[in-house]
Amino acid sequence: MATKIQTPKGFRDFLPPTLSGRKFVLEKITRVLEKYGFEPLETPALEFADTLRGKYGEEEKLIFEFTDRGGREVALRFDQTVPLARVVATNPDLPKPLKRYQIQPVWRAENPQKGRYREFLQVDFDTVGSSSLLSDAEIVAATIAATKEVGFKDFTLKINDRDTFKGLSLEEVRIIDKLGKIGEVGVIEQLKRTGYGTSQAKAILRKIKNSPPTKNIEKLFGYLEDFKIESDKYAYEPTLARGLDYYTGLIFELEVEGYSGGSIGGGGRYDDLIGRFTGAKTPATGFSFGFDRLIEAAEEAKLLPDYKPSTRVFVTVFKESLLKESLGLVSKLRSRGIAAEIALDPSEKLEKQLKYADNKGAPYAAIIGPEEIKQGLITLKNLSTGEQTKLKESELIKKLPSNTKS
Amino acid sequence: MATKIQTPKGFRDFLPPTLSGRKFVLEKITRVLEKYGFEPLETPALEFADTLRGKYGEEEKLIFEFTDRGGREVALRFDQTVPLARVVATNPDLPKPLKRYQIQPVWRAENPQKGRYREFLQVDFDTVGSSSLLSDAEIVAATIAATKEVGFKDFTLKINDRDTFKGLSLEEVRIIDKLGKIGEVGVIEQLKRTGYGTSQAKAILRKIKNSPPTKNIEKLFGYLEDFKIESDKYAYEPTLARGLDYYTGLIFELEVEGYSGGSIGGGGRYDDLIGRFTGAKTPATGFSFGFDRLIEAAEEAKLLPDYKPSTRVFVTVFKESLLKESLGLVSKLRSRGIAAEIALDPSEKLEKQLKYADNKGAPYAAIIGPEEIKQGLITLKNLSTGEQTKLKESELIKKLPSNTKS
Repeated sequence: MATKIQTPKGFRDFLPPTLSGRKFVLEKITRVLEKYGFEPLETPALEFADTLRGKYGEEEKLIFEFTDRGGREVALRFDQTVPLARVVATNPDLPKPLKRYQIQPVWRAENPQKGRYREFLQVDFDTVGSSSLLSDAEIVAATIAATKEVGFKDFTLKINDRDTFKGLSLEEVRIIDKLGKIGEVGVIEQLKRTGYGTSQAKAILRKIKNSPPTKNIEKLFGYLEDFKIESDKYAYEPTLARGLDYYTGLIFELEVEGYSGGSIGGGGRYDDLIGRFTGAKTPATGFSFGFDRLIEAAEEAKLLPDYKPSTRVFVTVFKESLLKESLGLVSKLRSRGIAAEIALDPSEKLEKQLKYADNKGAPYAAIIGPEEIKQGLITLKNLSTGEQTKLKESELIKKLPSNTKS
Repeated sequence: MATKIQTPKGFRDFLPPTLSGRKFVLEKITRVLEKYGFEPLETPALEFADTLRGKYGEEEKLIFEFTDRGGREVALRFDQTVPLARVVATNPDLPKPLKRYQIQPVWRAENPQKGRYREFLQVDFDTVGSSSLLSDAEIVAATIAATKEVGFKDFTLKINDRDTFKGLSLEEVRIIDKLGKIGEVGVIEQLKRTGYGTSQAKAILRKIKNSPPTKNIEKLFGYLEDFKIESDKYAYEPTLARGLDYYTGLIFELEVEGYSGGSIGGGGRYDDLIGRFTGAKTPATGFSFGFDRLIEAAEEAKLLPDYKPSTRVFVTVFKESLLKESLGLVSKLRSRGIAAEIALDPSEKLEKQLKYADNKGAPYAAIIGPEEIKQGLITLKNLSTGEQTKLKESELIKKLPSNTKS
């Protein structure tokens, strides 16, 4: 074996059981986003490195960058917000406000560890070209609706306004943002390291914790009420800061109760970023689900359905000379929209075929032996109970649900 | 503007009208593949460069390869067959035969030109671990069923057996494969350049063209008949060779009549490739749709439905003081599964709101003014005919189809 049979650290394959849970959640979220009038967008994996540089603050060092064979400096998508900004700039005729969602992998050269990968899916939705707080309210409403649709019951969208931190430096804001992780003692310690005395540091933290909601937050909460959003699903959180440098107004962070992996998504208003591409003021607001955490939280909350393979029935081949009959049945089933498989090695013993069918999770197996042919019937075996019944083809078709309708 | 506002050549964004046609086709194909018992697989974009090297013959120079910050030589997925082989090797416990489909982008440093991109989607499906011709027949049957499901009527799956070329070198086979592109004169000319005389070159070509179907092809055709595949959808083509080095048995190529962009997919049996990863003989067969060509051919054949945005109704805001009523309506509609949007700038004139709604392609707009509030009604405006009717909320909900059911 000359060839490496692994992937680089931090990269994953997705196989059916996992994949089916992920698809289940994605479909739920997508349906909600489309109901809210967001439309899909896809961008290429590679952008010019210049497009990405200078947008992510200290995280920039995690960009996967390289020089291609043509000498161009390119980089793998690091998030979906910067590509969105580039798309808005390259398509000036798109009607605004533009409401788009984007569900694609992003790549970050993180230190791989539990729950942190180098390729991971982000689920983003944004409204570009509206400075109205109604847009922020709609982002909040869609986030809460999508989270509910996945099945979560106890969660809170924490909301703050960057204005709460007026007068503080970006570094100080970043320290306060760590409150949840390092606690008050940690925050005060780190604030002191920036030059404050103990009492000053304590005073800063106290002031932030006691900040009343800004006017914008109050207006937002009014809209959320008009949107009929249950008031226990969101809360004002004056210490919420979020690390990313590009937020300019309201900021959001989604927490699921009982999930210890951190917030499962975040967002906010970023009125300056897109203008760096368009050359004209282009306000925007949005939210991004961290899909791996969302899935992990959904798993913990037992929201993911049991995996079921699409195959409804596995058609065995009794013996090679009866293959024609089994092939005829499998084609008939498929033409009726019923997912069916055929034993691919007709010389294999029936028992082995049934075992394979069971292994793959098919709920039924069909058998057409000489006896069945004589009677004009088909044996249908329930692979979980072992129960066998002989049916006419038309009865068998009626008994098995069509995949196209499910 | 310091930032580049373009993507590198050969890379594309996908926006709604295009994206919706692509989703339409993908859903059709996926449904067929699942009906045939293929299950999804996703692999990461990056593999170790070593995994990809030595697998693609002369095309290897098109791999996007680079050294990451950790000094690892990595490469972007070049096709989905080599990653599948790696997955089979890293997951030895997967039940075999393994039937999987994979729909992800691949990256090739091609010279960008019309219809040729550096990132493009491939739609692959394969059966691993079965040397039975029944597996090849099923791949053919699924290809034909999927192509029909997309809506194509006149197409042919060309079929050949690598055995037809017994005694010829790989280079000679590659030359014969060009027959469609360069014609008989061109093939003879190129064969001569490999050392043959004119009459020898002609004789080789004639011999290939007159080769009778191999035993395997005859057996395959028998299975296809049992699968009830219409016989005008596939044909034996003795000059079909396909460039890729790893095919070992039957080979397939899909041609749509009237489409000039070349074949829209190809595949075949490759019994050696996976063994290079697993260290044990692992037969396999599969097919790959070139998704861009498939879409182009579907467009030309007018198989793609007109684009319709998901939004069914755009709820205007008559004036800011009536925002509450409009917000209430939009939430009600969404809660009933009807995709609805709200005017995000409540200070904007009604006329401008309606124009935006029409621009975005929403079929209806709803208006709640003082008159409507007095009457307890809502004005529903058909944006294509201009027709307006006043309805109760319950009537309006009945009139608009729910997205969740469509």
